[in-house]
Amino acid sequence: MTVPHAKVASPTNHADMANAIRFLAADAVEKAKSGHPGMPMGMADVATVLFSRFLKFDAKTPRWSDRDRFVLSAGHGSMLLYALAYLTGYDDVDVEQLKQFRQLGARTAGHPEYGHVAIAETTTGPLGQGIANAVGFALAEKIGEARFGADIVDHYTYVIAGDGCLMEGISQEAISLAGHHKLSKLIVLWDDNEICIDGRTSLALSDDQLARFSASQWDVARVDGHDPEAIARAIEHARTTDKPSLIACRTVIGYGAPTKAGSEKTHGAPLGAEEIAGARVKLGWASEPFVVPGPVLESWRNAGVRGASARQSWEGRLAKLDPARRAEWDRLAERRLPAGWREAAQAFKAKVIAEKPKWATRKASQEALEVLTAAIPELTGGSADLTGSNLTKTKATLPITPSDASGSYIHYGVREHGMAAVMNGLALHDGLIPYGATFLVFTDYLRPALRMSALMGLRVLYVMTHDSIGLGEDGPTHQPVEHLASLRAIPNLLVFRPCDPVETMECYEAALDNRTGPSLLSLCRQNLPTVRLDASENKSAKGAYVLAEAEGTRKVTLIATGSEVELALKARDLLKAKGVGAAVVSMPCWELFDQQDPSYRKSVLGEGTVRIAVEAASTFGWERYVGPEGAVVGLTSFGLSAPAEQVYQHFGITAEAVADAALGKL
Amino acid sequence: MTVPHAKVASPTNHADMANAIRFLAADAVEKAKSGHPGMPMGMADVATVLFSRFLKFDAKTPRWSDRDRFVLSAGHGSMLLYALAYLTGYDDVDVEQLKQFRQLGARTAGHPEYGHVAIAETTTGPLGQGIANAVGFALAEKIGEARFGADIVDHYTYVIAGDGCLMEGISQEAISLAGHHKLSKLIVLWDDNEICIDGRTSLALSDDQLARFSASQWDVARVDGHDPEAIARAIEHARTTDKPSLIACRTVIGYGAPTKAGSEKTHGAPLGAEEIAGARVKLGWASEPFVVPGPVLESWRNAGVRGASARQSWEGRLAKLDPARRAEWDRLAERRLPAGWREAAQAFKAKVIAEKPKWATRKASQEALEVLTAAIPELTGGSADLTGSNLTKTKATLPITPSDASGSYIHYGVREHGMAAVMNGLALHDGLIPYGATFLVFTDYLRPALRMSALMGLRVLYVMTHDSIGLGEDGPTHQPVEHLASLRAIPNLLVFRPCDPVETMECYEAALDNRTGPSLLSLCRQNLPTVRLDASENKSAKGAYVLAEAEGTRKVTLIATGSEVELALKARDLLKAKGVGAAVVSMPCWELFDQQDPSYRKSVLGEGTVRIAVEAASTFGWERYVGPEGAVVGLTSFGLSAPAEQVYQHFGITAEAVADAALGKL
Repeated sequence: MTVPHAKVASPTNHADMANAIRFLAADAVEKAKSGHPGMPMGMADVATVLFSRFLKFDAKTPRWSDRDRFVLSAGHGSMLLYALAYLTGYDDVDVEQLKQFRQLGARTAGHPEYGHVAIAETTTGPLGQGIANAVGFALAEKIGEARFGADIVDHYTYVIAGDGCLMEGISQEAISLAGHHKLSKLIVLWDDNEICIDGRTSLALSDDQLARFSASQWDVARVDGHDPEAIARAIEHARTTDKPSLIACRTVIGYGAPTKAGSEKTHGAPLGAEEIAGARVKLGWASEPFVVPGPVLESWRNAGVRGASARQSWEGRLAKLDPARRAEWDRLAERRLPAGWREAAQAFKAKVIAEKPKWATRKASQEALEVLTAAIPELTGGSADLTGSNLTKTKATLPITPSDASGSYIHYGVREHGMAAVMNGLALHDGLIPYGATFLVFTDYLRPALRMSALMGLRVLYVMTHDSIGLGEDGPTHQPVEHLASLRAIPNLLVFRPCDPVETMECYEAALDNRTGPSLLSLCRQNLPTVRLDASENKSAKGAYVLAEAEGTRKVTLIATGSEVELALKARDLLKAKGVGAAVVSMPCWELFDQQDPSYRKSVLGEGTVRIAVEAASTFGWERYVGPEGAVVGLTSFGLSAPAEQVYQHFGITAEAVADAALGKL
Repeated sequence: MTVPHAKVASPTNHADMANAIRFLAADAVEKAKSGHPGMPMGMADVATVLFSRFLKFDAKTPRWSDRDRFVLSAGHGSMLLYALAYLTGYDDVDVEQLKQFRQLGARTAGHPEYGHVAIAETTTGPLGQGIANAVGFALAEKIGEARFGADIVDHYTYVIAGDGCLMEGISQEAISLAGHHKLSKLIVLWDDNEICIDGRTSLALSDDQLARFSASQWDVARVDGHDPEAIARAIEHARTTDKPSLIACRTVIGYGAPTKAGSEKTHGAPLGAEEIAGARVKLGWASEPFVVPGPVLESWRNAGVRGASARQSWEGRLAKLDPARRAEWDRLAERRLPAGWREAAQAFKAKVIAEKPKWATRKASQEALEVLTAAIPELTGGSADLTGSNLTKTKATLPITPSDASGSYIHYGVREHGMAAVMNGLALHDGLIPYGATFLVFTDYLRPALRMSALMGLRVLYVMTHDSIGLGEDGPTHQPVEHLASLRAIPNLLVFRPCDPVETMECYEAALDNRTGPSLLSLCRQNLPTVRLDASENKSAKGAYVLAEAEGTRKVTLIATGSEVELALKARDLLKAKGVGAAVVSMPCWELFDQQDPSYRKSVLGEGTVRIAVEAASTFGWERYVGPEGAVVGLTSFGLSAPAEQVYQHFGITAEAVADAALGKL
């Protein structure tokens, strides 16, 4: 159900309202001596129509769940967003914040950052991410409606995207997925200004964007982006179609700037005092910088509270939900996991300890996910077209299809980047914990979006299988080498590499407990023994622990992760046969280990012992744990195509090599 | 000029020729117990038409320059390529290689690898890369024709791409660029089998691909992929248009398999003995595995030498080139740099040492590129729509436009991933050394293609600017943190971070001298002093060196890169004032330093001294050089939006902090 909105902004003051955005943007960029005035000035008319007539929001209660989402995919135009927040009356953006644009400690960062200002539904700036996040929002909305009904979940997702967003490949993945799922409440307003940073878009682009979106099953329209009534008609139409909608808004970048309008010169640098003065004359704007005339501000503030009644109506409907569904709604809104899930995880661990299966950790992950998806309905899975290899589909997760969003598994297609960015959107929306899968080597394809998960602190789970040369015959294009190091280098990302079913479940538990950032599970293709035979505490949550202490004096500490823990245990036996006491440390998560207190870390790493790390991946970074007296058994080159065991042999990643390395250092 | 080809494959034996591919593929996968039979079986008819009637190639002289290029973008179908190599008579793929498919030491790797088999024009497997490489081939061909004339450079580039390639975002970037540049000799044969790994493509895809390609200014057609005459007509047509061409070939995956044809079950696993036996019956193929009936093999071998006369004609035309152009052709073909370039570089260094400019290294890079592009005409530059920020456009590099390919600068648009993959194609084609630019943080967007540069060992130069928090106000979305570590972890990639104009030129020299892999230059936005005041040897080529020795006894070694060398030098002064002798080591390239002999490395790192590293980036990996007794001044979190100096202060990356770290460790 769509809540009707009063149209409070009469056409008579539209121009003033739009000009308020333009000058707040231009003046703030001028004061900051950096920023992007061209886009806010160009899109001010479109934004004014959207925020004053259509967008369902309440500036005084900005985070109520059923608000329309607005995503500024062209994040460099951040002053558009901050101007709108100030004008409509968000409490966290006063005029001082505008004056402090891009300064240390201000919420008004150079690009809009999730968590800094309430109006930023997502962090944007890296192009194309926002439009893909928005697909996640729209999909989450559809899923939410299927679960709670349109009385409770029924909102639009609007996007402003620029040429850059549409040139990025990720946009194709996103729009293709949106068209497939008929996300009819997704409306993209394209800032079609024909300008990119290098000059006219025709320097590098000959696409017919409307035809392109049509080809992906979107509704498309083109309007004069400076004609408010035309914009309004286009949005009205877009809200009625059964497809996602693209509205190409033909605009003039830097609209109003007397000599620079329509030029890339307005894109990413202050206009200069003279140009701004000229714009004031040209647009008839007499106010000083950061001053908005009272009547104009009043119109804007009215727009800002326009959605209050819709919010109140929604709260009324929420109050009438039956108690069980209301409790579930509150649980999801507060992002609490359901009762019983941890007990289910514990039971799983007891079972595998009893049965000691020989599973690849991807298989262990599947079995763990069977338990977890049954216990935690907000887990929303998927794979970038490798479901049967990633083993991410469970009995509890039914596919989400274009005609039925009641399931919880998404066939993302061969769209790793789109998947990750859509997951960010799902995680930002209320109520879902997304997990998505591909091969570990293809984290490269989704890395920009994974970085955004980490930067925003989103609980997104990356289930990455086929995590080493152990995948064998597919060869070096498919064998990750540098990926674990590259991922461990990302701030605020937990990288887990479990060694058996117990650790796999422990890592999932730690990932689900991590509410302030993404987690990545690195899982192998080849079978492994179950080696953890106690589950009294989540040892993986400490990052590393002594899996097998030395018999006799510990002279050597063998540190291993994932599939190489088995090798380390064998090397321990080889060393024992030579009278050398060696402990095996399993280290499923560097980041969590580094958070432990120094005494624990020292006890695990065995100060004074020879430390040998083994991991079928780049040795890069392992110096942290083995020190200059230790050694790392790993890779310094790309892999090769052959059966897995032979690849391990070829690269000398064997129990014998580990034992020899230790003996060589003693 | 297009060389006409005799049509040697009569329709009467087309089916046998195609079935030869099918069974070689199915039997090799069966023997290897892994691989992808479905695609070669499905596309056998298309490949037979292409290789027996159209493709200009000479199996006995496979690498002559003006051959048509064939790219198997759907690289998992590698057995299609190996079967074609064997059937047409390439010397490096005999039947034994087919039997050794995917085994240790075989050239017939799981996915086609450049340098392993002559028929592989590029390494493929990661989806979408091949089609983008092919855009690079076609663009290089157009550039070559503009430089040497159509008598010398005039060939087509054919691609077989699958649904996965077209779903990947990179394909959009590539096809958009190809359409813009009217790459009329690029012909993509799409294996339109409606099957992806998860099942039918309709699980995740509703795109009208023909409309999508049309929107990017391609010529499009649809044919029955099992009707050889229809395929031939479509290719004939595609060769005559003035646009790149997409031919959708509707095929049945696993064609001929009695129960699995048309199903994803044929995609990525052996068919099984029974299914293959059934296919033999169904297709009337009586031969044993790996046996091709004499007449069929003869037809194929005839196809393999069909292009010999075209090659000979081309060699004749090449012989008639005037001597100067011939010498230039040979130089480029042998990938030798022109005389005089090193002297020009040396003169540049002498000049900046005399003038000591305060330049950002991106500015130093621009000045260096002015010299290098004037001296080395094969340098082909570009930027992903950040030309004015990356400073990669020089006087010598005129833009390549759709109507004029005589220039050497490519406006890639906001398509980092496409840019990198196109550069791989340019580098694989004879005669060009591509360099391309974006912000360092956006290496994440192009990482899959950068990995392919490294895996293939291609001389591609990545010019990455705005390389730290020093970019200031744009904030954490644009500030690289983990990127240097992530890039250093990639095998066979040289990562350079020069500190001033002398080092910048030295790094370019080292990058150009590196003929077996890509190089990446990490360049800053903020101004820096010129600190290297001698240019007698290329010290950057050693990876690291003592820039300023300690006065008195060296107790401390300060190791820095790029913009932080200035800080290290200031810290050295602070320590000197406290009576502590400290040396400053500039370390522009870890990889080259690690290749030096141990005594040099020890002398640089100052064994027994306290070692402090400073880099405005993640500290990850620096333990290698500072050891457990040292310290790293750097970042462990994302950056923030503020003026650059304040960001440095905020994160404690200052000369004082470096000096204090050293004092604390003494």
